[in-house]
Amino acid sequence: MKKLIAVSGSDGDDVNLSTHALKVAEKVGYYIAEHQAVLLCGGRTGIMEAASKGAKNNNGLTIGILPFEKSEANDFIDVPIPTGMGNARDYLLINGADAVIGIGGRWGTLNEISFAMCIEKPTIVIKGTGGWADLLSDPKIVKGFEKKPYVVSSAKKAVEMAVKLSE
Amino acid sequence: MKKLIAVSGSDGDDVNLSTHALKVAEKVGYYIAEHQAVLLCGGRTGIMEAASKGAKNNNGLTIGILPFEKSEANDFIDVPIPTGMGNARDYLLINGADAVIGIGGRWGTLNEISFAMCIEKPTIVIKGTGGWADLLSDPKIVKGFEKKPYVVSSAKKAVEMAVKLSE
Amino acid sequence: MKKLIAVSGSDGDDVNLSTHALKVAEKVGYYIAEHQAVLLCGGRTGIMEAASKGAKNNNGLTIGILPFEKSEANDFIDVPIPTGMGNARDYLLINGADAVIGIGGRWGTLNEISFAMCIEKPTIVIKGTGGWADLLSDPKIVKGFEKKPYVVSSAKKAVEMAVKLSE
Amino acid sequence: MKKLIAVSGSDGDDVNLSTHALKVAEKVGYYIAEHQAVLLCGGRTGIMEAASKGAKNNNGLTIGILPFEKSEANDFIDVPIPTGMGNARDYLLINGADAVIGIGGRWGTLNEISFAMCIEKPTIVIKGTGGWADLLSDPKIVKGFEKKPYVVSSAKKAVEMAVKLSE
Repeated sequence: MKKLIAVSGSDGDDVNLSTHALKVAEKVGYYIAEHQAVLLCGGRTGIMEAASKGAKNNNGLTIGILPFEKSEANDFIDVPIPTGMGNARDYLLINGADAVIGIGGRWGTLNEISFAMCIEKPTIVIKGTGGWADLLSDPKIVKGFEKKPYVVSSAKKAVEMAVKLSE
Repeated sequence: MKKLIAVSGSDGDDVNLSTHALKVAEKVGYYIAEHQAVLLCGGRTGIMEAASKGAKNNNGLTIGILPFEKSEANDFIDVPIPTGMGNARDYLLINGADAVIGIGGRWGTLNEISFAMCIEKPTIVIKGTGGWADLLSDPKIVKGFEKKPYVVSSAKKAVEMAVKLSE
Repeated sequence: MKKLIAVSGSDGDDVNLSTHALKVAEKVGYYIAEHQAVLLCGGRTGIMEAASKGAKNNNGLTIGILPFEKSEANDFIDVPIPTGMGNARDYLLINGADAVIGIGGRWGTLNEISFAMCIEKPTIVIKGTGGWADLLSDPKIVKGFEKKPYVVSSAKKAVEMAVKLSE
Repeated sequence: MKKLIAVSGSDGDDVNLSTHALKVAEKVGYYIAEHQAVLLCGGRTGIMEAASKGAKNNNGLTIGILPFEKSEANDFIDVPIPTGMGNARDYLLINGADAVIGIGGRWGTLNEISFAMCIEKPTIVIKGTGGWADLLSDPKIVKGFEKKPYVVSSAKKAVEMAVKLSE
């Protein structure tokens, strides 16, 4: 059985999505494939597309858990799984994953990361990618909570930790 | 048709759950009933139970969207709806509501609030109740996001706003 | 806590929906209210509307588990719960119920009844109402299966059995 | 993007599961791989395992949509996707598929086939495999319904039709 690593991050319409975050996402996808793991993502644009592209550039397998229709998938998704559940597909993405990597992100990314924390999936955020990944990297913000996401500062470390934590 | 107002907050096992937050939750439940609205919640202990108790003290109707079993419901739930979906019942709670009020809270509450933001349900957090409700009340934390939850400082104002926004 | 009895049957666009089946559904709703139970249904037209009307005529409480929007609810639904899951709301309807009554029906009704059988909810079909309720009443058809739905021939008996089986 | 063909049929604990049905399922899996499509199934034993084995014997890709845990997967599943939704995972299996093939089966299989009919996925049952596949192959049983599943009598024809209908 293959390991499934979920990548969570903004759609392409996020005005705060930086070139750096997209590059990190592409590297994350590349390293997921390098570790023979499967990339699981929301299947759409932005961070999801960058990660999918990275995985395909390294001959990885990409699965997109889509809101409603196959046609929503980006060009680098091998296996599109439409759910008919809209944004609630976030839950399936997280439930299906062995570990979760958060990059940048708005409320949808936060929804995925917070759900991963709830059900105790190994959860890693990449510092420096903006959005909620950066906010959740801030010890002052998460200090009051018993459970905290892991914080790393590179794509390589994020995937290494995700692989290790899903063993 | 009745209005459904969701209350989101920690289970009773949250060590940071304050007496103040529980009192606020009970008042929120009371005012929901006062406005002839239905209280929708996760059906369990802590904030959910306090809100349910408040609604029942004012002859309100309480519905608990439960993870797995009817037996998970607190004593103030009239209509227990087990979902068989575990924590993913959060999504149904928010989808079913006309407006959402967040009180205190850890990752589960954040999961509900972030999902409400995603699908653009009117979302109100009560400042001073601790946890994520307080963090999301902080303009410095949410400044980077286009969509923000409404922030109020009392149970009465939270319910008035929830009722108004669900018209 | 109140008992929840689900009524499953065709939407109003089923060309095979008989006046008899609609009358039976209305009586089922009436008796559900008579037993102080809550009517849970898919919230739409046809059998669902007839059952809801019957329950309201007897001062019952009606909850509609809707595919997407509150606006899909029929006029006799007190508490509309939109799920955002489309037809998959069938699963929530059945999961949430203490017992299920099937009247007439096409593939959607069969989907609800078969799911109820899977998860071993008490399931009753009313013979003489057409569609899958009649097919599943035929001992020749269901003879090969260990689990079979209960078969009754009146609304009154169906509700009495549903109430008894959910004790 | 790859085509996803779902195979629906009993778990290994179905006492009516025939050697013939299992052989048909294995052939169905084999032909799905032959057509470069992905086998989507419930991931467990019986028909699901036989189909997965057939696909792996032909170097296919197999995805198991599981009720709760990865550990539920049979030995021939490449990508296990636990859903946390129990039997309601049936709905995701069908929603994710381009076409559905039903073999034998009890209430769970019927639940999947009836849902496929509801949402108008191309649905094929294989006559001679027992259970609900045979019952739904009987024109006398389904005569009253506008929509009917396709009926074929071999694994090869079932997959050819599934591939054709998902174009």
